Amino acid sequence: MTIEGGTVTAQLTEDARRTAILDAAAQLIAERGYHSVRISDIAQVVGTSTGAVHYYFPGKSDVLTAALRHAIDNAFDRQSRELKAIDNAHERLLRLIDMQLPRVGPLRDEWSIWLQFWAEATLRPELRPFHNTYYARWHETVVKIVRRGQRQGIFRTDVDPETIAQRLTALTDGTAIQVLTGAPNMTVAAMKEVLVQFVHDELVAPRTW
Amino acid sequence: MTIEGGTVTAQLTEDARRTAILDAAAQLIAERGYHSVRISDIAQVVGTSTGAVHYYFPGKSDVLTAALRHAIDNAFDRQSRELKAIDNAHERLLRLIDMQLPRVGPLRDEWSIWLQFWAEATLRPELRPFHNTYYARWHETVVKIVRRGQRQGIFRTDVDPETIAQRLTALTDGTAIQVLTGAPNMTVAAMKEVLVQFVHDELVAPRTW
Repeated sequence: MTIEGGTVTAQLTEDARRTAILDAAAQLIAERGYHSVRISDIAQVVGTSTGAVHYYFPGKSDVLTAALRHAIDNAFDRQSRELKAIDNAHERLLRLIDMQLPRVGPLRDEWSIWLQFWAEATLRPELRPFHNTYYARWHETVVKIVRRGQRQGIFRTDVDPETIAQRLTALTDGTAIQVLTGAPNMTVAAMKEVLVQFVHDELVAPRTW
Repeated sequence: MTIEGGTVTAQLTEDARRTAILDAAAQLIAERGYHSVRISDIAQVVGTSTGAVHYYFPGKSDVLTAALRHAIDNAFDRQSRELKAIDNAHERLLRLIDMQLPRVGPLRDEWSIWLQFWAEATLRPELRPFHNTYYARWHETVVKIVRRGQRQGIFRTDVDPETIAQRLTALTDGTAIQVLTGAPNMTVAAMKEVLVQFVHDELVAPRTW
């Protein structure tokens, strides 16, 4: 038991260190940009050696991918827990939208990493399968909520959930770009308004006009 | 006259060299990424010295901004000429959409530069005014075409041209990201279909259902 306990503790420490490296990497990439972050910057924030960082992530590209995965997994887990607690599909979709707004803080940091990842994935095809896995999951989340709303009699049934998901995810990315690049008319509040209005027009609006 | 002629020739040569540098920079940035391009790479492609490149663009950030400006101005001039020749607003809007699709070649290269610019502008606020000027122009182009279609009795008049422009530009960016990052279901043809369908649903569809 003692040996087992010791092993578990060592394992936890290892996990904790890996998480600390990822947290630091994600934060630095979000603030300074992937290309401006050095492995030594990450090591310094964590209080470890560059060798320790390299041990977990052999190349710099591995850090970017792992930091994005870390940030997105955290967001996804948080979102899934919250969304499952909301029965009404319309409220659930509005909550998803709200949780994805690039508010200053961790959410804006996540978006900053995404924008950098898009640029990298455009240039380096080997990053795309990873990217696409996350987009497919996001798309599927929206599709399921739309279908749920149609079953609940809340959403219009003459629309295709796949089409709605395609438009809503693209609209979310497109409006987020405008927020992050400081477009004068696109604040976080304005982005929310665009997305909420889209959901209303496409899914909720009565078809009586 | 001879002196004037000589001056004009020198001026043209200067302009031609600047354009050659910008063409090379834009191409290299689109293919390799802003952070991977060295001033010496640009000089080599043009067949000039790094000093000559620095003469026109003191810092690397100046090259990125100028290359984006160059690519976008070229695209805008090309689009404006073509669009003005189309009287029917619906056809004009569909032509604009078509001219912005990230087909392999110069258009995909422009999009690659845009994606990189978004990431940079997120991290460096000093790039945003430039970015916003172009987005405002694009937005305004769409608003004018929608208003034209409403005057022509082709587009529904119960929609706000500003709202349509906001959604269509965001949807264009969002779908382009998916094309450039290789999303399995988002080819250039699929992107076109999403945008054409959006225009149909929002602006053309009869309101009789």
